[in-house]
Amino acid sequence: MSLQTLLGIELPIIQAPLAGVQDSALAIAVSNAGGLGSLPCAMLDAAALRKQVELLRAGTSRPFNLNFFSHTPPVPDEDKARAWRALFADYYAEIGLDPVAQPAGAARLPFDEEMAAVVCEARPAVVSFHFGLPAPALLERVRATGARILASATTVDEARWLEAQGVDAVIAQGVEAGGHRGMFLSEDIATQVGTFALVPQVVRAVRVPVIAAGGIADAQGVRAALDLGAAGVQVGTAYMLCPEATTSALHRAALKSESARVTALTNLFTGRPARGIVNRLLRELGPMNALAPQFPLAAPVVAPLRAKAESLGRDDFSPLWAGQNVSGCREIGAGELTLALARLV
Amino acid sequence: MSLQTLLGIELPIIQAPLAGVQDSALAIAVSNAGGLGSLPCAMLDAAALRKQVELLRAGTSRPFNLNFFSHTPPVPDEDKARAWRALFADYYAEIGLDPVAQPAGAARLPFDEEMAAVVCEARPAVVSFHFGLPAPALLERVRATGARILASATTVDEARWLEAQGVDAVIAQGVEAGGHRGMFLSEDIATQVGTFALVPQVVRAVRVPVIAAGGIADAQGVRAALDLGAAGVQVGTAYMLCPEATTSALHRAALKSESARVTALTNLFTGRPARGIVNRLLRELGPMNALAPQFPLAAPVVAPLRAKAESLGRDDFSPLWAGQNVSGCREIGAGELTLALARLV
Repeated sequence: MSLQTLLGIELPIIQAPLAGVQDSALAIAVSNAGGLGSLPCAMLDAAALRKQVELLRAGTSRPFNLNFFSHTPPVPDEDKARAWRALFADYYAEIGLDPVAQPAGAARLPFDEEMAAVVCEARPAVVSFHFGLPAPALLERVRATGARILASATTVDEARWLEAQGVDAVIAQGVEAGGHRGMFLSEDIATQVGTFALVPQVVRAVRVPVIAAGGIADAQGVRAALDLGAAGVQVGTAYMLCPEATTSALHRAALKSESARVTALTNLFTGRPARGIVNRLLRELGPMNALAPQFPLAAPVVAPLRAKAESLGRDDFSPLWAGQNVSGCREIGAGELTLALARLV
Repeated sequence: MSLQTLLGIELPIIQAPLAGVQDSALAIAVSNAGGLGSLPCAMLDAAALRKQVELLRAGTSRPFNLNFFSHTPPVPDEDKARAWRALFADYYAEIGLDPVAQPAGAARLPFDEEMAAVVCEARPAVVSFHFGLPAPALLERVRATGARILASATTVDEARWLEAQGVDAVIAQGVEAGGHRGMFLSEDIATQVGTFALVPQVVRAVRVPVIAAGGIADAQGVRAALDLGAAGVQVGTAYMLCPEATTSALHRAALKSESARVTALTNLFTGRPARGIVNRLLRELGPMNALAPQFPLAAPVVAPLRAKAESLGRDDFSPLWAGQNVSGCREIGAGELTLALARLV
């Protein structure tokens, strides 16, 4: 069965869920063009998710994807938290923030009973997971709705594990991809694999369709991914300049600059490795810092600093998420971009 | 002009120079099949190189490539050398090696006047460089022989720099590639780029033909690289099981095992980051160790340990060079493999 038939879409193009820089508007535009629009749900509470699903249902009659995180919730460690805050003390002082003021920042919650209940009401055509899968009973509730289930693999071992849990397709996320690595059987970024090497090996290792992600930015890239055996692609970075994305002006400017060609995996913003443009924070603390607490507990310390700096027009402390190939970013409608991506399919 | 016309070859397939695991036999087989065979020269002295060139001339009338390193020779630092030796003291004791016995190991010399003289005699069709380019006067001597000049770029900036120096084509080496990273304008492996992202961006940045390298292992991979805009490909890992390669039995066994899927960039073997299969040494010292002296001064400490362990049938201390995609390794003749790689061109 083709990926299009499996997911009920016309084009083998999945818009990657972009937590923090999109809402339902981007997903609607992609789904209406024949691709699969995705809504990132990990930073929404149940009420906000219901609202976004209403908007999705009002905006499109086509399939869409709800994306959730499935990490293990962290065990707070006060010593680590203190060391992490101390690392930022000079930045807080520099920018004039009270060190005890600790707004919670955007929470990132794993998929749970409450979200499962919303999925049961919303009945999306597709549900995708990042950082592994939820517990079997929760996953079964999703499956029982009839939703197709996708999940990210960053290695052959992760792809095999996901297939054994019964996912309908595997997203092979190459190391080029922007945002969070979906890795869940390893924490070692040194052994993460590029798209060109990952996709063919995952295709040989599993029987379910494989969706290529990471570095795919234009029609030639889509064509190349299909040549490597992928059944479809997931594209994120290329959509970030679309008017339907909520990408900030500072983030848009960074994506359009020469500096966008230099990205790194960093755990500074959340505690888990995610790819973003190298900016002041990454340069000064190192992109991977051993003091970072467990995901997502790094975030509340960086968030107020980022907010204050952004209010001053500075992106020094912003997570400038981007993949390694920004050459496909275009300031055109997401529907038009979706059609352009599928031009050589 | 096509890459084939530029280099005088029939197929847009370049066999990557594989220092330590091949000699002229592999290059001859590839050139005779219509690809471009390469001879790694950095570990040869002038007499050994002359001998290999004689064999090449006797074995093929087709174009071949002589590959050289163009690193800046290191400044020995006795403190660093001592710390590096100390790190290996327990391994030496474990395996029964005298800690003061320090055989020099294989030297890796940058391209110099003596090698330029051999090139002037040998008149190869193609000369390629890794780690940047030699000084302008030396490069001019090579150019004056009529040889086409290739060099490796790992970023867009490096590709632009090489084009400005007048190279005839740029090898865009994605992070998937096995062996040494060709990086020379940056030392930061955190910002190295995957093939899928690097190739299209280099293609947009330079006017000379771009040769894709890293993760390309079979005809589908070659096709995909051409889709991304490459004029040809350079393939290394896939050739390592060919009978014409001098890959050791231990190395061959590792390439055929499941462990070959887990590789990392490591500076343990030479001082410069190079990709190999994760084995005991990488696990225990960490693949990138801050104590490693400047390239190639790390090598003489590891070499005797490796030799002793290999004599005992153990690959614990061997550089098991491999790219991230071993799925194309086949135990067939290198000529047949070359034709198979070009099947979808």
